[in-house]
Amino acid sequence: MQKKAVILFSGGLDSTTCLAIAKAQCFDCYALSFHYGQKHSTELEAAKRIAAAANVVEHKIVTVDLSGSALTDVDQVVEDYKGDGLIPTTYVPARNTVFLSIALGWAEVIGAFDIFIGANVMDYSGYPDCRPEYLRAFEKLADLATKAGVEGAHYRVNAPLLHLTKADIIKEGLRLGINYSTTVSCYRADEHGRACGTCDSCMYRKKGFTEAGVADQTSYI
Amino acid sequence: MQKKAVILFSGGLDSTTCLAIAKAQCFDCYALSFHYGQKHSTELEAAKRIAAAANVVEHKIVTVDLSGSALTDVDQVVEDYKGDGLIPTTYVPARNTVFLSIALGWAEVIGAFDIFIGANVMDYSGYPDCRPEYLRAFEKLADLATKAGVEGAHYRVNAPLLHLTKADIIKEGLRLGINYSTTVSCYRADEHGRACGTCDSCMYRKKGFTEAGVADQTSYI
Repeated sequence: MQKKAVILFSGGLDSTTCLAIAKAQCFDCYALSFHYGQKHSTELEAAKRIAAAANVVEHKIVTVDLSGSALTDVDQVVEDYKGDGLIPTTYVPARNTVFLSIALGWAEVIGAFDIFIGANVMDYSGYPDCRPEYLRAFEKLADLATKAGVEGAHYRVNAPLLHLTKADIIKEGLRLGINYSTTVSCYRADEHGRACGTCDSCMYRKKGFTEAGVADQTSYI
Repeated sequence: MQKKAVILFSGGLDSTTCLAIAKAQCFDCYALSFHYGQKHSTELEAAKRIAAAANVVEHKIVTVDLSGSALTDVDQVVEDYKGDGLIPTTYVPARNTVFLSIALGWAEVIGAFDIFIGANVMDYSGYPDCRPEYLRAFEKLADLATKAGVEGAHYRVNAPLLHLTKADIIKEGLRLGINYSTTVSCYRADEHGRACGTCDSCMYRKKGFTEAGVADQTSYI
């Protein structure tokens, strides 16, 4: 029997690469997406198509209400990239903690001990819950939180993109056969999944294609 | 300005006592309940009434999909209390981790650094995510997960019932003026909030009233 893994999967560039890496490591993949009131819900449509094409065992979309950031509050505006090193307004409080917790619950139900997350240090745009020390703390919590952990199991939070540049991620993805034109990373993509080209996420992605020395497969508004 | 606290609040005996304790400690209380597909959703109606009566600043009910336990799967049956020391089928995978994560997100939004949870070791019915070492691990995670934590804040997970017996909890609640007839603890309460009297939760509650030497205020089916 193959090992199972839960993949946090938004349908963006990073998590699509993450899913391809988990598959290449021979995991049976269970993709987990969230509807958390994000404005860019076209990414969920992309997620559905990509997950189906990747032959995941199951793709679950969980609705959970997260408020208090520019990504979810209609009265806050997603700003253009500033590059000032500050934590941006697109930061969603405790987002990865909520996502990893739900992934952990699903993992326990299906008997998986591996969770994959597309967290990244290099381009992490100042999110505290993408740092390695955070991910290690979550693994410890998982072992204490679960029936399986009490019985001796160890959970692993795999973050294969953690120390890669966006360019390296793109190169790895292309090597694994990903067509990035189907992925949506933009924080304010239109209903066709076309990207704005100027938000944080678009800037990191553009820079990645440039530095990887390959054509940008993204379709822009 | 008073300190703020987020209270995990189900409308049951424990969390109602927990809310009263937080109020007695002069916190501005933000009550957080969850609709997670639990069968005993009458507890949410009780939660609304009790939160309103307790003059909380805000009562938020978050919907989140948790599956894989007898509490949420319609094809699993809630069993009578067995007292065999095993983790019961009513265990919801990673439930407290998901709940605390969402509480943490709300805490960060409103500027609270205290979360109250009615976790209990004595009567904890074998749930791994009610143990003190688990709660300490969550505090560490919270400091690493959040913008506020990165900026030096420390989060506290307050579990004032942790080492109390059910009888002690009831005595403390009565001292603080709680009328427990409005609270619902039963895993299979009917639409009027009346308790079955035989599930794990009912057994612990009954025993608590007996040992506290006070009349059981619960209404049974």
